[in-house]
Amino acid sequence: MARTTGSHSDITRPKIRAAALRLFARHGFAAVSMRALATEVGVQAGALYNYTPDKQTLLFSLLQDHMNDLLSACDNDPSQSAVDRLRQFVDFHIRFHADRPDEVFISYMELRNLTPENFAEVEALRRQYEDRLETILRDGAAAGDFAIADTKIATLAVIAMLTGVNTWFRAGGRLSLDEVIAQYWDMVRKSVTAG
Amino acid sequence: MARTTGSHSDITRPKIRAAALRLFARHGFAAVSMRALATEVGVQAGALYNYTPDKQTLLFSLLQDHMNDLLSACDNDPSQSAVDRLRQFVDFHIRFHADRPDEVFISYMELRNLTPENFAEVEALRRQYEDRLETILRDGAAAGDFAIADTKIATLAVIAMLTGVNTWFRAGGRLSLDEVIAQYWDMVRKSVTAG
Repeated sequence: MARTTGSHSDITRPKIRAAALRLFARHGFAAVSMRALATEVGVQAGALYNYTPDKQTLLFSLLQDHMNDLLSACDNDPSQSAVDRLRQFVDFHIRFHADRPDEVFISYMELRNLTPENFAEVEALRRQYEDRLETILRDGAAAGDFAIADTKIATLAVIAMLTGVNTWFRAGGRLSLDEVIAQYWDMVRKSVTAG
Repeated sequence: MARTTGSHSDITRPKIRAAALRLFARHGFAAVSMRALATEVGVQAGALYNYTPDKQTLLFSLLQDHMNDLLSACDNDPSQSAVDRLRQFVDFHIRFHADRPDEVFISYMELRNLTPENFAEVEALRRQYEDRLETILRDGAAAGDFAIADTKIATLAVIAMLTGVNTWFRAGGRLSLDEVIAQYWDMVRKSVTAG
């Protein structure tokens, strides 16, 4: 294969990350050795250490980047109504996570394998993301569009409901992602509205 | 400590199960050796094999028993209204899971470590449990109490929302479990009702 652009590093680094993501998701962080990772990438074990000091750094970087990607992609226009922003949030959350099953899976499964410092950083990013939704719910409650006893609880309930899609949705199944999103939006909208 | 009742086996078997549950939840199934388990229980490694042929059997038994306990405890009277049965289901689900954080955690985290045959058995039990909720939703939709586009989707959405409580609820926190249940019931009820 002709290598016409990029240094070794430009090519190898993303390959290592993709291989780590795949292996951690399939076998679990604890069960994957740096040697197995090197084999998957097709480099010598020693060469891996040019790219990452250890497995922990690799895991942390995967989880941190996932959260940063989520935060960058999650955009909503505060001049729109809270109902519109909530609809966009539901659509965004389900699509973003459906596109990244391995990232979502290891973000949940491997949290316990982060060092306390790394865990605290990933948790802070997760709270930032929750705050985006809570702001929408609070704005909607203030405007009288929503009826919510506790916006923090509602935030956690909605996110758990939406993330659950990843445990069962398969493209090409009985329902399209658009149909799934429409039904979740209907349920979420009603759950935070007076009724 | 005086041992006045029970054989060695009656005493050791539950100790092994409790230790396995604790260690699997803390370190992950893959990271726990039979030797480490024996040390935790306080028996010789060889003695463990009098109680379980291997780690897989132990994991399967923990996950299977958890689902069977759930199915036995989940009771609802079909002569009551679907709304009442749904309220009871929400209350039951949150309390049952809040009482068993380790069982819930490993039931999710260690599914991938079951053999295909064992996985299929645990999945069948999980579907039985989902069917209990779906029956309530279908009865309520038929009676005109609920407005649900797809009862299967609604079932999965409600269960994900409710199980999410386990990821954040701590006894002695800002809200009591009763307050949490009241808010989840309000959201679940509205999510499946016309609005």
